[in-house]
Amino acid sequence: MVKIGIVGGTGYTGVELLRILASHPDADVRAITSRGEAGTRVVDMFASLRGHYDALRFTAPDATDLKSCDVVFFATPHGVAMAQARELVGAGVKIIDLAADFRIRDVALFEKWYKMAHACPDLLAEAVYGLPEFHRDAIREARIVGNPGCYPTSMQLGLIPLLEAGIVDSEHLIADCKSGASGAGRKAEIGLLLAEASDNFKAYGVAGHRHHPETVQELAARSRTPVKLVFTPHLLPMIRGIHSTLYARLTRLDVDVQALFEERYAGEPFVDVMPPGSTPDTRSVRASNVARIAVHRPGNGDMLTVIVVEDNLVKGAAGQAVQNMNLMFGLPETAGLTAAPVLP
Amino acid sequence: MVKIGIVGGTGYTGVELLRILASHPDADVRAITSRGEAGTRVVDMFASLRGHYDALRFTAPDATDLKSCDVVFFATPHGVAMAQARELVGAGVKIIDLAADFRIRDVALFEKWYKMAHACPDLLAEAVYGLPEFHRDAIREARIVGNPGCYPTSMQLGLIPLLEAGIVDSEHLIADCKSGASGAGRKAEIGLLLAEASDNFKAYGVAGHRHHPETVQELAARSRTPVKLVFTPHLLPMIRGIHSTLYARLTRLDVDVQALFEERYAGEPFVDVMPPGSTPDTRSVRASNVARIAVHRPGNGDMLTVIVVEDNLVKGAAGQAVQNMNLMFGLPETAGLTAAPVLP
Amino acid sequence: MVKIGIVGGTGYTGVELLRILASHPDADVRAITSRGEAGTRVVDMFASLRGHYDALRFTAPDATDLKSCDVVFFATPHGVAMAQARELVGAGVKIIDLAADFRIRDVALFEKWYKMAHACPDLLAEAVYGLPEFHRDAIREARIVGNPGCYPTSMQLGLIPLLEAGIVDSEHLIADCKSGASGAGRKAEIGLLLAEASDNFKAYGVAGHRHHPETVQELAARSRTPVKLVFTPHLLPMIRGIHSTLYARLTRLDVDVQALFEERYAGEPFVDVMPPGSTPDTRSVRASNVARIAVHRPGNGDMLTVIVVEDNLVKGAAGQAVQNMNLMFGLPETAGLTAAPVLP
Amino acid sequence: MVKIGIVGGTGYTGVELLRILASHPDADVRAITSRGEAGTRVVDMFASLRGHYDALRFTAPDATDLKSCDVVFFATPHGVAMAQARELVGAGVKIIDLAADFRIRDVALFEKWYKMAHACPDLLAEAVYGLPEFHRDAIREARIVGNPGCYPTSMQLGLIPLLEAGIVDSEHLIADCKSGASGAGRKAEIGLLLAEASDNFKAYGVAGHRHHPETVQELAARSRTPVKLVFTPHLLPMIRGIHSTLYARLTRLDVDVQALFEERYAGEPFVDVMPPGSTPDTRSVRASNVARIAVHRPGNGDMLTVIVVEDNLVKGAAGQAVQNMNLMFGLPETAGLTAAPVLP
Repeated sequence: MVKIGIVGGTGYTGVELLRILASHPDADVRAITSRGEAGTRVVDMFASLRGHYDALRFTAPDATDLKSCDVVFFATPHGVAMAQARELVGAGVKIIDLAADFRIRDVALFEKWYKMAHACPDLLAEAVYGLPEFHRDAIREARIVGNPGCYPTSMQLGLIPLLEAGIVDSEHLIADCKSGASGAGRKAEIGLLLAEASDNFKAYGVAGHRHHPETVQELAARSRTPVKLVFTPHLLPMIRGIHSTLYARLTRLDVDVQALFEERYAGEPFVDVMPPGSTPDTRSVRASNVARIAVHRPGNGDMLTVIVVEDNLVKGAAGQAVQNMNLMFGLPETAGLTAAPVLP
Repeated sequence: MVKIGIVGGTGYTGVELLRILASHPDADVRAITSRGEAGTRVVDMFASLRGHYDALRFTAPDATDLKSCDVVFFATPHGVAMAQARELVGAGVKIIDLAADFRIRDVALFEKWYKMAHACPDLLAEAVYGLPEFHRDAIREARIVGNPGCYPTSMQLGLIPLLEAGIVDSEHLIADCKSGASGAGRKAEIGLLLAEASDNFKAYGVAGHRHHPETVQELAARSRTPVKLVFTPHLLPMIRGIHSTLYARLTRLDVDVQALFEERYAGEPFVDVMPPGSTPDTRSVRASNVARIAVHRPGNGDMLTVIVVEDNLVKGAAGQAVQNMNLMFGLPETAGLTAAPVLP
Repeated sequence: MVKIGIVGGTGYTGVELLRILASHPDADVRAITSRGEAGTRVVDMFASLRGHYDALRFTAPDATDLKSCDVVFFATPHGVAMAQARELVGAGVKIIDLAADFRIRDVALFEKWYKMAHACPDLLAEAVYGLPEFHRDAIREARIVGNPGCYPTSMQLGLIPLLEAGIVDSEHLIADCKSGASGAGRKAEIGLLLAEASDNFKAYGVAGHRHHPETVQELAARSRTPVKLVFTPHLLPMIRGIHSTLYARLTRLDVDVQALFEERYAGEPFVDVMPPGSTPDTRSVRASNVARIAVHRPGNGDMLTVIVVEDNLVKGAAGQAVQNMNLMFGLPETAGLTAAPVLP
Repeated sequence: MVKIGIVGGTGYTGVELLRILASHPDADVRAITSRGEAGTRVVDMFASLRGHYDALRFTAPDATDLKSCDVVFFATPHGVAMAQARELVGAGVKIIDLAADFRIRDVALFEKWYKMAHACPDLLAEAVYGLPEFHRDAIREARIVGNPGCYPTSMQLGLIPLLEAGIVDSEHLIADCKSGASGAGRKAEIGLLLAEASDNFKAYGVAGHRHHPETVQELAARSRTPVKLVFTPHLLPMIRGIHSTLYARLTRLDVDVQALFEERYAGEPFVDVMPPGSTPDTRSVRASNVARIAVHRPGNGDMLTVIVVEDNLVKGAAGQAVQNMNLMFGLPETAGLTAAPVLP
């Protein structure tokens, strides 16, 4: 059994970790911290977990022994994981950060977008970007994994095969992404109220979004040519799900793009390349770690439309984190992640 | 492994059975029939099941060998199960009907509400009403189980302890029930369109609903006094979930009703009596077989308010059917039904 | 033109007042205050009002001359209106309070439920409860109107005709009420987030809700016998609309209740008694000041089920406030309130 | 008063026409036809219209005298208007078709996409495309107006200023469009059920959508260079609203695009160019005829992102039709269309 600690367990990624780990055959959640809810029983906050974690209480971060864990998940705001990383790693504890502290390699770029100094550039340098489809071997050996953002996961899954193949105009990539409201986190903001955000749709962050530099970093690392990306996030009037509609201009028209994707993801347990002509919906992956991809070339022209759907809380956050944990501890990669999506 | 056949697999209860059975350790779905979709791969209709049932195809009812199954689930309109029951039972196959053919003991009452003659009154007579909390032992021995309706499950769980104890006015029971739209089934009706039913709320069937006689039958069987019930179903602008708000006038004020419920359901794996003062929400049981119950006595008066929440497709249909299957085959009652609810 | 001031214009009742008054032929909104948004253009906060109030800015309460208005609407938290009432009334300004300061006649009862001392019991004594269907003449003469709560409006419209007629058991009234999320106001609370409250349903305030004493006060005033009411509010996963399902036991079975309601509300411009057998939905009154009522007697028994639907922000708040203003200023009662509901 | 007939009044555009015309100062709805609902009172089908059209009944198309009307709106499936156009126009009746019969100039193109022969190519030749912002003068003189599709209205409003100015790569235009479910019409289809389409998001028609040729026709007519457009429609889990996110590569970087849009739409009553940096939401135009536009140039690069929001049933259908009627009859262009959007 892997001994697990969770820092910051009251947000959506925290409770989703608990949900997934409740069915994981090798997971033993030992501690879960929350500054604000210390002392509260987990099941008193999340009735859905009654019967699964009846004895577990949130504890104060300072009073929690995380060093006896095998792995600690940080389901916290940005900045928390890096403050605790050195001590934990020093004690032999592996870290999976679901925030951004260990995603962006370039310290200056991190500091520009996240408005804070990085606490441990040396650890950042060794951290591995936790997208198993592209970093599986490194994740297996990692002490620190920076779990990807929800939007970046979908954009990378849809664009990297094209960039690796060098068949698109890499300087005019477009990602029109739509996310359910849980992607914004469990925080009390007017704009996220049901009375504001339901029966409504809008773009946001058009001028700049923190998931942009992370995505460009990873795309560029796989591209033979410079990468420029227009990224438009939108807020969907629903709870879970990301649908990224990606556009790229083909620079070579003689490539079988469907086959390219099928080959690239052959054997991947959590990437499902759909048959030609498909338009997968977000509910087809609801509560599941699978991402589904469909490739279109409308009117047989020189533009590609690639659709990627994922559950932002699973493949876009907690599920991918568990997938990473499985890799880091030599467990079957799919352990705890095999339940079928919830539909309808 | 239990060899399983599903008749009528294209509705919501059918796909929910498939979802649950995909994680069941002892289930082997051998056949799934659909008159309209014969030949179609299950995963081409329900992309959510890709990777779980890739080889399974819908087959025509007439061309399907169900007699080699151990159990057949009928996820069909009313009238189908009773037409096939004799042949299957004769071949030693157990039947779990998710429609109403085997719920109502009184043949005349069945025929009045369902507008069809009953095909096998003798089998009806031996069929067991599949609410394990009240018929567990009989279910274990049953050849035919009539799986309860979604509303009736919630009403019985909330009212029977009061009737058994004889502490309420059993002739003025009120059940104000609200159901997500999946309860109406996967059928193309204008009134169930998103553009009609979302951002909207309404009552329906106020003058009479088929779940009324079934519920009264079961309540009366447990009551010392005659039962009259006002039942108002309402359509919620959401997918899954039933919330039944039940009202009863106390005829005895000296009873600890909280304790009554806690004792009645002690040890029940799928009934969760909440702490005093709770108002459980439907999402706390989303995609789970658990029903949660809260008991209130507003203003310490003589009226009780009992809240029951369940997932109409799970405890209200497919999950309860699997729970019954587990009992009928001597499996652990919770097999395949242990995943935590999906929240948010 | 009626010169209008609005205190507290950033909540849902405030913006709804602005929306309605934008189409009112005799309304001139002169001032709108907001402590937090002083200086902000109204249309920069509510883009929906662009083109309607382009010159209007929120102003600080202290710096706003409300005494030159003919009427001031208070779309504020409880306690604000009573603090300013004396000065305004003294200056000849009429007041319509959309909060609770002038609803509850009994000062002690007010103070118990609202946890604050009443600032002007003498003005409370003269204030009129602003439900025109029962207090029309008094409203015409009033200096101060306490605009009813959203739930209480629906409960009174549905129950008072029964109490006036003396045909129900007034001590066992049940109001099972469901409200859209806008009824909770435009405030940043976790429980009202789309990711929490959508695809979900729950009861709240079962042990006691502030709309209970207000409703009982008004019901009792119209009843020949003592009134006891069980009131269960529920949160609907939608924006606007209240659906109250009301239950009462008939003490006389020889009354034509449908006719009773039709006669009671004959000529009422905003109360629509539906034909027998109707189940009006909330969208049938969306964005409109109409309340629709349907009366049922299930199974021809001794229980009545009365359904009332209203838009909580219109007939339940801002629309009723404008209706009251029309009465207070001798305008046509329907002025500004004639637009058809928005469906779908 | 304009004497109005509506053919096909039971769909969403039909009921929306009725809603808008109920508040129109010069509209007199004389007749409304429906083959399926002949004899039914309009208010018995749409309770929201009670009090507005109490005497109006649906009549059979054949039994209805439309020739005494001044104008007939066709809120019908494609093919109906063209079958009746010659007779009506011959009788001096003006026609506004909300379907596609009079949108596409090229008869062969029409017939390819709509799979039917055009009944009156000569009338098609004289029909005017009813987008007032670009065809206002012609609409004033028209006998037949082909009211634009919902998606095309938004795409044209957002792209034509760029094409007229000749500042973008017109062969790689991208329109990523999202529509509420009412855009699919009031028809009983499984995929449009609340239980299927809510809490869900998907693309559709990626390989080809009927609004594509109509849009390209109009864009090309305003462009100096050939037009190619990738158009991806998506289904939003909500009722009303279209959000089109449009992408174009700038071929000239020295143009003030914000000013270009502001100048292009100066004086337009129903096009609102938002301040720089805006991300208008669909609810900001809910139930209103206004379209709002925002222009972005992310990262100051060579890609433009243009956002257009409209209510698909109003500016995208019935509201625009009334705007056209106003022009055709010399009424104020905004008559009946001045109500503020409904928010929240």
